[in-house]
Amino acid sequence: MKRARNFSAGPAILPESVLEIVQKEMLSYRDSGMSVMEMSHRSSLFENIIEEAEQLLRELMGIPEGYKVLFLQGGASLQFAMAPMNLVKTGKVGYINTGSWAKKAISEAKILGVPHIDVLASSEGDGFTHIPEIPAVDEAYDYIHITTNNTIEGTAFQTIPRFVNAPIVADMSSNILSNLYDVNDFGLIYAGAQKNIGPAGLTIVIVKEDLIQTEKTLPSMLDYRTHIKNDSLYNTPPSFAIYVAKLVFEWLKDLGGVTEMVRQNEEKAGLLYRTIEESSIFTSPIAVDSRSITNIPFVTGDKDLDAKFVKEATNAGFLNLKGHRSVGGMRASIYNAFPYEGVKELTEFMKAFEAKEGKFK
Amino acid sequence: MKRARNFSAGPAILPESVLEIVQKEMLSYRDSGMSVMEMSHRSSLFENIIEEAEQLLRELMGIPEGYKVLFLQGGASLQFAMAPMNLVKTGKVGYINTGSWAKKAISEAKILGVPHIDVLASSEGDGFTHIPEIPAVDEAYDYIHITTNNTIEGTAFQTIPRFVNAPIVADMSSNILSNLYDVNDFGLIYAGAQKNIGPAGLTIVIVKEDLIQTEKTLPSMLDYRTHIKNDSLYNTPPSFAIYVAKLVFEWLKDLGGVTEMVRQNEEKAGLLYRTIEESSIFTSPIAVDSRSITNIPFVTGDKDLDAKFVKEATNAGFLNLKGHRSVGGMRASIYNAFPYEGVKELTEFMKAFEAKEGKFK
Ligand SMILES: Cc1ncc(COP(=O)(O)O)c(C=O)c1O
Ligand SMILES: Cc1ncc(COP(=O)(O)O)c(C=O)c1O
Ligand SMILES: [Mg+2]
Ligand SMILES: [Mg+2]
Ligand SMILES: [Mg+2]
Ligand SMILES: [Mg+2]
Repeated sequence: MKRARNFSAGPAILPESVLEIVQKEMLSYRDSGMSVMEMSHRSSLFENIIEEAEQLLRELMGIPEGYKVLFLQGGASLQFAMAPMNLVKTGKVGYINTGSWAKKAISEAKILGVPHIDVLASSEGDGFTHIPEIPAVDEAYDYIHITTNNTIEGTAFQTIPRFVNAPIVADMSSNILSNLYDVNDFGLIYAGAQKNIGPAGLTIVIVKEDLIQTEKTLPSMLDYRTHIKNDSLYNTPPSFAIYVAKLVFEWLKDLGGVTEMVRQNEEKAGLLYRTIEESSIFTSPIAVDSRSITNIPFVTGDKDLDAKFVKEATNAGFLNLKGHRSVGGMRASIYNAFPYEGVKELTEFMKAFEAKEGKFK
Repeated sequence: MKRARNFSAGPAILPESVLEIVQKEMLSYRDSGMSVMEMSHRSSLFENIIEEAEQLLRELMGIPEGYKVLFLQGGASLQFAMAPMNLVKTGKVGYINTGSWAKKAISEAKILGVPHIDVLASSEGDGFTHIPEIPAVDEAYDYIHITTNNTIEGTAFQTIPRFVNAPIVADMSSNILSNLYDVNDFGLIYAGAQKNIGPAGLTIVIVKEDLIQTEKTLPSMLDYRTHIKNDSLYNTPPSFAIYVAKLVFEWLKDLGGVTEMVRQNEEKAGLLYRTIEESSIFTSPIAVDSRSITNIPFVTGDKDLDAKFVKEATNAGFLNLKGHRSVGGMRASIYNAFPYEGVKELTEFMKAFEAKEGKFK
């Protein structure tokens, strides 16, 4: 059984050793005679799993006391609405517009009728090819929302801004656990699991408890307080996805944690960016100081040649390299579980393609 | 590897043959070199899976044209809120109060501020031990909500009521595909997958499209129209759970569909109810004309003896027989995937327990 070189932006590649454990435990988790999929979420077996998952994530990210960790459903897309529903107090919020997902977050705040929405910085005019300069903001905001890594465009915040009177809400879907951030810099972090953590259908929320608005009455499932009070077991959680996440956290801890992961990710990304720089046919559309280490777009500048590259790469076993339909070209998503050798093989394939096609430039 | 006799009310036992396929395909689905967990939800491989899942469910339940099938997240608990959000037009809704889950559904409608909520029938005064008589209702309601099977209490609607001027919204979480109902009798059906369908984290919604209210602006993720328009792929769906559901649907179809399943379920339930009837120490708290075939509570009338039974049963490998904390006693959940032999073994264990303990009565 040959494993693919899977560059999917999400759901994305998982560590092979994790899949092997899942496979082994599929019909009987630790001699229980049950798959984790079949276990009551009220059983001590499952409670141990979810508690270990939380402890491991706390350790890996250095999550301080006062922050709650929630295992929810609905994806980051539901958090676009839940964050304002739970955090808006005065009605004044700020957003930094760095890409398609940031725009969706803004649009959901508008749908909810949040009275005052300021877009404090945007790189939309430049096609989102860089992270815009973030102004100093003294005014009070209920929160200011950022997207730490822009999955589609391939940019990432290299440092997290600080605002005197506003906590930061961060969509960290595509670089949670693959960049090193200090949780203290955030009021709320959310991320769909399907890139760096596990199967789709699990959403991680890390929230500073004292920020949660307590005056409003919200539908129970949309109220962070419900899930805090019930340790993410108010209703049936996505238990199998939580189990896989726990295994991924163990894998990551064994490897050396986020610091080691960042080292590996920078090595992988460095190799790919270098190949792009040295190439005469491939270029990166992204400003050097804004580049993501997890999602790396590149283009030839010629749509037909892009398509040809994607097709030949696919035939050679490099899957899901086609750029998002909104930007075109190519994009290699190389999250934590993507191995260095896979990137190396891709760069060799790129060089061979260039040698073959370069003459047409 | 011995498989447990797992009577969990949910997440619940799955067909062993399905788990074996999942196990086999864990590192490479159909020679793709990827686990289904790792597949882009925009890939043709996954699109085939979700389309097949929908087609199979349509076939198994006889879902007519005009009804949409959605694969969502959030559990039945989120539907307690989404159903009123999407269906309320005039503001007048009815509920039938048959148990703890029905009460939660009512409570979420209240939280949303639905202006006029009529509880049209209730068996709460009798401890929910039967399905109440349903009055004829001529008045118009945006919908009348029922819980077809009351998981905790062990009752089920034997026939679905018809109301002249109100569509029925049904929480079918614990008997979808294990009782035979006619989808035409409903305006909306919803069910968490974790009992009869697959892993937790997937919610099935079957909705008659022309009932959806179109004047309101709802958060995108909470709006049925979003998911209809995008064939359940507006955002990343719980793709792995959908894959397992598809395998369960195939298993069910191969077995002979819902009709055959009902026959098997009635056989299993019949054996257990008969054993309870014939027993001098166990009784069923549930009225004969209201009994569920999927969730079967029984009691000795003596808390200590109940506890002793549960303990000895657990030691003998009959897991999760403890009744819900709100009702006590025992409960055997025997969904589609629970095998007849397991029920037979349980009844033999009950008889042996009775022979041993009967003298203390
Ligand atoms: C940065 C970012 N935000 C939000 C989303 C949407 O996530 P979900 O599909 O879990 O709703 C994605 C998905 O790719 C993303 O990359
Ligand atoms: C009838 C019924 N409705 C609703 C629920 C809640 O479902 P979920 O945990 O998926 O939100 C359950 C769960 O057991 C149930 O049995
Ligand atoms: Mg906790
Ligand atoms: Mg170049
Ligand atoms: Mg469809
Ligand atoms: Mg009896």
